[in-house]
Amino acid sequence: MRTLKLIVEYDGAGFCGWQRQRGSAAEGAPSVQATLEQAVAEIAGEPVPVAGAGRTDAGVHALGQVASLVTTSRIPASRFPAALNAHLPPAVRVVAAEEMPEGFHARYAATARTYRYEILNRPGPSALLRGLVHHVPEPLDVAAMHAAAAALAGRHDFVAYRGVGTATKTTICAVSAVAVGPGDRASEFPHPCVRIVITADRFLRHMVRMIAGTLIRVGLGRLPVEAPGEFLNDPDNRRTGPTAPAHGLYLVRVDY
Amino acid sequence: MRTLKLIVEYDGAGFCGWQRQRGSAAEGAPSVQATLEQAVAEIAGEPVPVAGAGRTDAGVHALGQVASLVTTSRIPASRFPAALNAHLPPAVRVVAAEEMPEGFHARYAATARTYRYEILNRPGPSALLRGLVHHVPEPLDVAAMHAAAAALAGRHDFVAYRGVGTATKTTICAVSAVAVGPGDRASEFPHPCVRIVITADRFLRHMVRMIAGTLIRVGLGRLPVEAPGEFLNDPDNRRTGPTAPAHGLYLVRVDY
Repeated sequence: MRTLKLIVEYDGAGFCGWQRQRGSAAEGAPSVQATLEQAVAEIAGEPVPVAGAGRTDAGVHALGQVASLVTTSRIPASRFPAALNAHLPPAVRVVAAEEMPEGFHARYAATARTYRYEILNRPGPSALLRGLVHHVPEPLDVAAMHAAAAALAGRHDFVAYRGVGTATKTTICAVSAVAVGPGDRASEFPHPCVRIVITADRFLRHMVRMIAGTLIRVGLGRLPVEAPGEFLNDPDNRRTGPTAPAHGLYLVRVDY
Repeated sequence: MRTLKLIVEYDGAGFCGWQRQRGSAAEGAPSVQATLEQAVAEIAGEPVPVAGAGRTDAGVHALGQVASLVTTSRIPASRFPAALNAHLPPAVRVVAAEEMPEGFHARYAATARTYRYEILNRPGPSALLRGLVHHVPEPLDVAAMHAAAAALAGRHDFVAYRGVGTATKTTICAVSAVAVGPGDRASEFPHPCVRIVITADRFLRHMVRMIAGTLIRVGLGRLPVEAPGEFLNDPDNRRTGPTAPAHGLYLVRVDY
């Protein structure tokens, strides 16, 4: 038996999210996980469960999702990406594959995840980046957003930035890095793009999208710079958000 | 009567190109021009011909196509983009509109056009940028491509870089700037993107795509660095190209 680590890129648009759905939910859009498991089964000739580092929601993209699997397949790791891509839809691409020591698990072994939220900040929407960026037509104060975001760094209770109706053992997360600045795409447009990048040991459901929605309100001058930090550690706070749309969010990297 | 200048962004994928088709050709994919003219007619309440600065081919994108029109409509220029976008498919967005002096014509008044060719240069294709970049899996020598491109700057006969079966009065073009370097998207991927940017007074049909195809051969070490420059001014040269795919090409800017 061999353990493999895959780096996976996907366009979240046509998927119900990373995680395999059970029962009646499985009848809707496919999950990235089930799509990948089917491709692995086709090349490995056996059913193989695939574990993912981040459970991205419906519509959320990934540039560097990490998946792990255990298989008896003898295909060399270097040939795995091309072999899997031949059985995957174009919206899912395996970018790299690597042999790992026995016991490696993409989710449990991960020490940090990095997400990015992309905002197109110009009056008109984009024809070319539709589905790839969230469009905010009013000008954003990027410096104010960056200053507000700084208060989120460190170990805090992010309960106020958690999507409703989701239970977890703990709502404490350690944010090791957070920044708001111009995106790579800035030079392609007459108006700038804005990018939020955040790294933490773990994330709560909708957490990055609620942080993005809250920081956008700061950028629009509708919330003081201090507010996002003040909302931390307060289980009764309902003033965060709104949850920014899924199509602006990317799982960029997972560290081990 | 008023003359307006529009900046138009489009995803070329679903279009037969910029130019309106006549006769049986009009039955296929729509043109960007006809799509725009229909939207203008709907908001202006009259049929209005729209002229474009660059006649992009089927599948070619635009970030800054310029279109001009003459209308009796009293809608203020500032409200034109939103009004038109409400009648356009999401693959076409009017980014800006401006009042111009009588007689302004997007095509005849243009002094320079800038095109960009985007290459994703990593072993595996991209799930997120499919349709937006041309994928070259083998590593490209970007410095060699840049050096080769330098010979194209200046006033030359680009007859060897013209698509077959197209007649024009002259094949002389003045290239004012040409560069090959890393693209904005470089930081988003584990492998770099490569971007060719070229500005000229005019372009022949397929010229940028044939230049891109020729420079890619240099980048792969299959053609000497001097070759692209040596192919200039030679009407019998058939060693240029191949024509790189349309979906990597963008009309970026038009100068007046």
